[in-house]
Amino acid sequence: MTKTIRLLMPQWQGGNNPNYSFGAELLAWLAPDNNQPLIHVPVQAYDGTPLDNENGMNGRKQLLEQLEAAQHIIDAHKPDRIVMFGGDCLVEQAPFAYLNERYRGELGLIWIDAHSDLVRYVGYDNGHTLPLGNLLGEGDEEFAKHVKIPLKPENVFIAGLAAPTEEETKGFSETFQKLGVTTIETDAEVIQRLGIRTAGTQELTNSTLSIKEWIKESGIKYLAIHIDLDVLDPKAFRSLLFANPEAPYNLSPAGTMQMPQLLHLIKELSEETDVVGLGITEHMPWDAINLKNLLGEIPILNH
Amino acid sequence: MTKTIRLLMPQWQGGNNPNYSFGAELLAWLAPDNNQPLIHVPVQAYDGTPLDNENGMNGRKQLLEQLEAAQHIIDAHKPDRIVMFGGDCLVEQAPFAYLNERYRGELGLIWIDAHSDLVRYVGYDNGHTLPLGNLLGEGDEEFAKHVKIPLKPENVFIAGLAAPTEEETKGFSETFQKLGVTTIETDAEVIQRLGIRTAGTQELTNSTLSIKEWIKESGIKYLAIHIDLDVLDPKAFRSLLFANPEAPYNLSPAGTMQMPQLLHLIKELSEETDVVGLGITEHMPWDAINLKNLLGEIPILNH
Repeated sequence: MTKTIRLLMPQWQGGNNPNYSFGAELLAWLAPDNNQPLIHVPVQAYDGTPLDNENGMNGRKQLLEQLEAAQHIIDAHKPDRIVMFGGDCLVEQAPFAYLNERYRGELGLIWIDAHSDLVRYVGYDNGHTLPLGNLLGEGDEEFAKHVKIPLKPENVFIAGLAAPTEEETKGFSETFQKLGVTTIETDAEVIQRLGIRTAGTQELTNSTLSIKEWIKESGIKYLAIHIDLDVLDPKAFRSLLFANPEAPYNLSPAGTMQMPQLLHLIKELSEETDVVGLGITEHMPWDAINLKNLLGEIPILNH
Repeated sequence: MTKTIRLLMPQWQGGNNPNYSFGAELLAWLAPDNNQPLIHVPVQAYDGTPLDNENGMNGRKQLLEQLEAAQHIIDAHKPDRIVMFGGDCLVEQAPFAYLNERYRGELGLIWIDAHSDLVRYVGYDNGHTLPLGNLLGEGDEEFAKHVKIPLKPENVFIAGLAAPTEEETKGFSETFQKLGVTTIETDAEVIQRLGIRTAGTQELTNSTLSIKEWIKESGIKYLAIHIDLDVLDPKAFRSLLFANPEAPYNLSPAGTMQMPQLLHLIKELSEETDVVGLGITEHMPWDAINLKNLLGEIPILNH
């Protein structure tokens, strides 16, 4: 019998934002009940202490410890399938690296995300820009060495990559310059060098043929699906870093995918392949966060 | 020792919208843990059958049964204080009517709401337009007769009432005309006839003196606080009927209160009076609803 486990990993250090922890808890609470056990991966809760920048990554030590904790839990259960509720994107490394071993280096991975998560942004220094890089044996050396069998680049597809307008691109690069953020190699350069296939949301709205061809040509049998919720249009789904009602976000472009399109894509992938991994990440439910904080201060609720 | 209970009443029939049920569940989940027991009031879940319009109210029979169920549960516990998590606004009737008996007809009630919930809108026919009317012994006859001691109008204050612009007022009245919605007496006429005090959000931003004077002049010692979350600005808090990303809402004006202002007001009231009742209603968390629906259809989560 196929054994599936659910992991709840309320990791926040990879995005250096404690709200990711609550986003993970709510996400797991929203998931349909079934027989899959829900296992908590221990994460050091935010205690008010700012993270140290350790060798170019905020909270590197905590992130490495948590990666190892997730690995131990997965090794304890040895599942056939894993569902991961994050937390920041970096939570995906342990389950997907395990699944690639479990399926003898043949795992396919579709990275549904407004960002490709391949490279380090020097000066931004948050680990959640790196999980796909790590899984390919690149990214950050200390993290990549925890991936025993790197994924094959031809087995990876990036879907929903944001396509900023020229004006937006100019705006972001100005912000980057102002903040002193640089990359050694850009995401686009890594994608080209490794020959990773991609499709933007607009292309996928017209047709998902490019994904079907990738599945066929790369012979993908077992598939892991990564979803960074920021692939969604923040006007329709507002529980995203980009959609903070109190502060604009201008470090990167927002997604444009609609929820029915995302669901349709997941269903298609589930028909064409054996989906053995699913990760959902970067849930930032502003309203629930603000309402929880309000309730937490109402006297009659706190006697 | 003071005995406080929490009630979770996921009533949806009063707004004729099943999403109110989930809003109630999430609201109760967000509340801080403490020793207050959380008691579920049985509510007939939406099963796909549209509500019948029964003598001018959609789902009248279910609403009356649920009102009686809430009364029985309260009578079983005989608490000193009640926290109510709704659900549509009509959930407030049972706890506040009980509290007014418990405090010998001297309960004060602040109705923090973009709407005054006093009268029936013929042609709209949803019970949630009536709870304050019922509590005052007016409103709907069948509901009002469940209020053994009606609240004194001078003990009621309506805060945050939306003040539509002239253009908005024109738009709403055109919509009402198109839909054939009418009132026998308007909210404003009832407020004037009964001499109920009110203050809009803008006035309260400048000063809460009018509320403090009301507390003093009416001699309010025990206070119930009703919060319809629609008093909040839907640009800042988007989990509201008004803020459906997929459909505009044009039946009534939206609130303009900010969350820090709401919290400040609640804290002030808690200092000036003994807060014995709190109801929070009309939570409509679109993102969580949409995300839950998405998760409910993902194959790997539903094996």
